Amino acid sequence: MYDGIVQDLIDELGRLPGVGPKSAQRIAFHLIESDSDVAMSLANVIQEAKAKVRFCEVCGNVSEAEKCGICSDPKREQASLCVVEDSKDINAIERTHEFRGLYHVLGGAISPIAGIGPDQLRIKDLMKRLADPEIKEVIIATNPNLEGEATATYLARLLGSMEITVSKLASGLPVGGDLEYADDMTLGRAFEGRRRVN
Amino acid sequence: MYDGIVQDLIDELGRLPGVGPKSAQRIAFHLIESDSDVAMSLANVIQEAKAKVRFCEVCGNVSEAEKCGICSDPKREQASLCVVEDSKDINAIERTHEFRGLYHVLGGAISPIAGIGPDQLRIKDLMKRLADPEIKEVIIATNPNLEGEATATYLARLLGSMEITVSKLASGLPVGGDLEYADDMTLGRAFEGRRRVN
Repeated sequence: MYDGIVQDLIDELGRLPGVGPKSAQRIAFHLIESDSDVAMSLANVIQEAKAKVRFCEVCGNVSEAEKCGICSDPKREQASLCVVEDSKDINAIERTHEFRGLYHVLGGAISPIAGIGPDQLRIKDLMKRLADPEIKEVIIATNPNLEGEATATYLARLLGSMEITVSKLASGLPVGGDLEYADDMTLGRAFEGRRRVN
Repeated sequence: MYDGIVQDLIDELGRLPGVGPKSAQRIAFHLIESDSDVAMSLANVIQEAKAKVRFCEVCGNVSEAEKCGICSDPKREQASLCVVEDSKDINAIERTHEFRGLYHVLGGAISPIAGIGPDQLRIKDLMKRLADPEIKEVIIATNPNLEGEATATYLARLLGSMEITVSKLASGLPVGGDLEYADDMTLGRAFEGRRRVN
C-alpha cells in the first residue's frame, strides 16, 4: 500500500478492464516518473473523449457527430445491415473489407444471468430501421458464444416473417488453426457447415 | 482504425507500459461507454498525482511531502540503509516486514546498453548519506538480473573500503517453487549459497 494520491491513482487504474493490481502499479509509476506532458496528455484525451464522443443516433456506433462516418457515407450500400453487439465489432469487420453496407449496434447480447433481455438491447431501433423497404438483407454478426448465439436465434425468429434475407456469420475452423487442437464445438460446427468444393 | 478522438484515446492508452493495442481499445471503450464520473475521476487523479507527487529529497521514494513517510518516521532504524532500484521495490520489501531501516532509491540500474552508468543513478546522493557515521549497514537489494547484479557489484566495490557492513539479498530457489523447474542459474545460486542446518 502506498500513501494518498499514489494509491488513489493505482486504485483508479486497477478498475480498468484487464488491468490487475501489478499493472496498475506499473502504469501509475510510469505516469509519475515520466515527463509531465505524458500524464497530462492522457488525462486531457480522456476528458476530451468523454466530452466529445457520443453514439451515432442511427446505428449506435461511437461517433463525434450525430451520425457516424459509416452512416453518413453515401457510398455505403444502403440495402445491407450488419447487426453487431458492440462498436468494437464494427472495427473488426471493417478491417476485413468484406462488407460495404451499414451497421446496427445492439449494445450487448441477451444474457439472462446478467439480467440483459431484448428490451435492454437496441432491438426496437433495429425494427424501426427495418421498416425502411430499402433494406433487403440483414447479416447477424453476434459473437459465437452462448449469449451471442441466443441473441442471433432471437433475432432470426423476430425477422423470420419479414421480406428480408437474414444470414449469420459462418462458424468453423479458424484460418491458420490446427484441426487437432480445435475444440469439439468448433469442429462440430465446421462439419455441420461443410461446403461442396467440386 | 477509429476516427478522431477515439483513436487518440486508444493511442494514448497504448503508450502505457504493458497495454497492447487490444487492451488499449478495450479500456478506451470502457471509458467511453461507462458513466461520465468513471472517466473523469481517472483523468482527475492522473492530473492530481502529477501535480502533487514528487520524490523524497532524502531517499528518492515517491512522496507528497519533501520527506517521504519512511524517512520522516523516527521509529525506523537509522543505522540500516537498504539500496533499491525503484520506489516499487520499497513497497515490495515493506510488505515482508523484515526490514525496519531506511531506504535509498537509485532510480534504475547500471546498463551500458541503455546508456545508464553510475552517474545517471543516485549514487552520489548515497555516498553523501553514508558520510553520516550513524549508518552502520547497507543492504543492496537490486534486482537479481544482469543490470541489478552489475550495480550490486559496483556498489560493493565502492563501499568496500568504508567501515560499513555491506550485504546483498540472497539468491536461491523461490519459496513454493519446484526444484525440477528451477532454471540453471537459480539452482546454481541455491547451491552456492547453501546454508548449514545442523
